[in-house]
Amino acid sequence: MSAEIRIREAAVEDVPLVLGMIRGLAEYEKLSHQVTATEEKLRDTLFGPRPGADVLLAYQNHDCVGFALFFPNYSTFLAMPGIFLEDLYVKPEWRRKGIGGALLGRVARIALERGCGRLEWEVLDWNEPSIGFYKSLGAVPMDEWTKYRVTGDALEKLADYLKTR
Amino acid sequence: MSAEIRIREAAVEDVPLVLGMIRGLAEYEKLSHQVTATEEKLRDTLFGPRPGADVLLAYQNHDCVGFALFFPNYSTFLAMPGIFLEDLYVKPEWRRKGIGGALLGRVARIALERGCGRLEWEVLDWNEPSIGFYKSLGAVPMDEWTKYRVTGDALEKLADYLKTR
Repeated sequence: MSAEIRIREAAVEDVPLVLGMIRGLAEYEKLSHQVTATEEKLRDTLFGPRPGADVLLAYQNHDCVGFALFFPNYSTFLAMPGIFLEDLYVKPEWRRKGIGGALLGRVARIALERGCGRLEWEVLDWNEPSIGFYKSLGAVPMDEWTKYRVTGDALEKLADYLKTR
Repeated sequence: MSAEIRIREAAVEDVPLVLGMIRGLAEYEKLSHQVTATEEKLRDTLFGPRPGADVLLAYQNHDCVGFALFFPNYSTFLAMPGIFLEDLYVKPEWRRKGIGGALLGRVARIALERGCGRLEWEVLDWNEPSIGFYKSLGAVPMDEWTKYRVTGDALEKLADYLKTR
């Protein structure tokens, strides 16, 4: 039997470790050019007065082998909170050992404890290994929906919509 | 010139109004069968001790003509909070008068005031009128991504992942 997987909440001292894994995830997703996170920004936004998300770290023996980062969302149709899993990452050399499932399972447990109706996350459409795993867990693709994003100058302009129309 | 659009925050007294519009949105999206929200659940989850979202109401003269419901999300790549717009709805007889844009603009303004890096929402792929409008505002489709959802029995089972594998 493989070594036990332990999961604990991250603390501010773990920020360098977390940033390293965020960069690892971005590299896997071919999105490294989008990463502007720094240790200072992560400390402020995750461990300051208004934490934007919860972070879990997975360990195998003394090695930190992966992380999960999540925050609450809300369904009007259910009138219930849910959880959105923003990041799920296992270091390459530790994959296919149940660590991703263990992290997902812990987040699902937290969702139930908080009275949440659902757990959601997003995956890149080319990421077949992950998609197969998610489907095996009973996750359903919401493939009639597309997310839209406004950022930068477009966000500034949109904020002035009533002034400019 | 058309009548001025006013926007205000919803209060607990507005719950019946909000539920009516949630049902109107579900009907438009052909998802009425998914709605299990009640006035009581909305009161608890939106106006109780731990509000799950902010709600804005749009008025034209004395008519409540639409609403927006949103909550914070978080980007690890930016190490910044964002806003996710869960619902945007304008009553059918009031569409094409700039009310949806006014609500979106107000949410964008709130995003900037809160130091958010982006505003995001989802749209059904067949909803061409809305998609055209969103693109005209500079919103970018994240069409390489698909959301996955776990709910009900699959969520309970996932919460026991480490016990059962």
